[in-house]
Amino acid sequence: MNASKIESFLHHLCEVSSQQTIPRFRASIGVDNKLASGFDPVTEADKQAELAIRREIADTFPDHGILGEEFDDINPDAEFCWIIDPIDGTRSFVCGLPTWGTLIALYQNGKPLAGVMDQPFTGERYYSNGKKSYLTKGDDKRELSTSDTTDLTTAIMLTTDPRIFSQDLKDGYQAVENKCLLTRYGTDCYGYALVASGQVDLVVEAGLNNFDIAALIPIIECAGGIVTDWQGKSASGGGNIVAAANRKIHEQILQTIAEASN
Amino acid sequence: MNASKIESFLHHLCEVSSQQTIPRFRASIGVDNKLASGFDPVTEADKQAELAIRREIADTFPDHGILGEEFDDINPDAEFCWIIDPIDGTRSFVCGLPTWGTLIALYQNGKPLAGVMDQPFTGERYYSNGKKSYLTKGDDKRELSTSDTTDLTTAIMLTTDPRIFSQDLKDGYQAVENKCLLTRYGTDCYGYALVASGQVDLVVEAGLNNFDIAALIPIIECAGGIVTDWQGKSASGGGNIVAAANRKIHEQILQTIAEASN
Repeated sequence: MNASKIESFLHHLCEVSSQQTIPRFRASIGVDNKLASGFDPVTEADKQAELAIRREIADTFPDHGILGEEFDDINPDAEFCWIIDPIDGTRSFVCGLPTWGTLIALYQNGKPLAGVMDQPFTGERYYSNGKKSYLTKGDDKRELSTSDTTDLTTAIMLTTDPRIFSQDLKDGYQAVENKCLLTRYGTDCYGYALVASGQVDLVVEAGLNNFDIAALIPIIECAGGIVTDWQGKSASGGGNIVAAANRKIHEQILQTIAEASN
Repeated sequence: MNASKIESFLHHLCEVSSQQTIPRFRASIGVDNKLASGFDPVTEADKQAELAIRREIADTFPDHGILGEEFDDINPDAEFCWIIDPIDGTRSFVCGLPTWGTLIALYQNGKPLAGVMDQPFTGERYYSNGKKSYLTKGDDKRELSTSDTTDLTTAIMLTTDPRIFSQDLKDGYQAVENKCLLTRYGTDCYGYALVASGQVDLVVEAGLNNFDIAALIPIIECAGGIVTDWQGKSASGGGNIVAAANRKIHEQILQTIAEASN
């Protein structure tokens, strides 16, 4: 699995997936209530895209593992595992907003190796081949590099929704928001991509599943950033997430959260 | 000023404007602090786009009025007035998010006649020629029509930021959010465009300037929707805004706000 092979296969998976998502974006789509307790729409696009991605992986790498949101795990103890979230940001998708994305990660021995965040409506594809990170849009390709902002008070934060933070996490999150120069909401996986590209400096979120973050870790880290949980431990299993442009910003975020949570 | 002439001139203004905005989007841009009290970035893109739009209008319609955010009003008492906000959603622009837009409205005798919301990064152009509303993306053109959702409890709301509501407006806004099925943040002018296209059902915001809403009124109303202030009066001067897919939803929003504000 060298970088070039990973890269071309990631592109292929995105093409296959977007054939299922784009025709259903902004169409009249059926929305199920997946959680009886709330509103968690899951669309036919989600299921069909995951099936299409799984089919390609199983055909090409039959000994690899596959973990996805919508269907059962396959071979989860394999050395190489693919982790799929065909539509991260299903609420944005339902609203017609272009901040959802298709997330596909490749893990080796439980650690993130490579991944892609594809936004087929805008035509943007942010990915890491395990060595470097890139953004392609049409024929344009550029290497990604995180920002060199080192002071949290001049930093820009993105987060999906301030309502995601449970009572015990609110103070920590709010302290970071209060310190930052600017915070914008509504960003889903798109926010992490903008950290990788150096456009913004951090994302702070809570309660993520592994498939919500798996692909984004190598994209940000191969661009110079760092992704951990709120205690500075591995983010590869999901949980409460801090994604930062660099180690200095990351330290200030963790310290701010720790002080506010006492 | 027939519909066809308006339409072709709006397209021309968008082309001229995007030549100033797109090269500066996601580039390293200078950000001024326009308000000493807060963070209201205004970019070179904003100024240059407005200058370019003003130049075209003045050349083509020298007797028309021009009102814009960045420069002095010209001939504001003319029968026909153009109202310009070259980058609505400057914060989104600074963050690299594609929900900002170029807003250009044409008023006749103080009333909105036609307008456009152009998002040149995604290639979407939502506009009204004074008769009907359309979305173009590349060669694709379709007529816009608002949703037929008539029950607020099944409706989707978009709004830019829950922090925009001052203390006396919070209860009214929150009551609407509590009734809706789903609310998403971070949408700027893009949210109004998604009401016009029938993708979502309402936007509730506060403290808008006339140039923030002028272009969006005809786009939504020629698609079947309704835009007023929170008391049901004209929105054409800005203020606290309700944009709704239809009259039934609009009535429920106004009633919900009024009840919560007592």
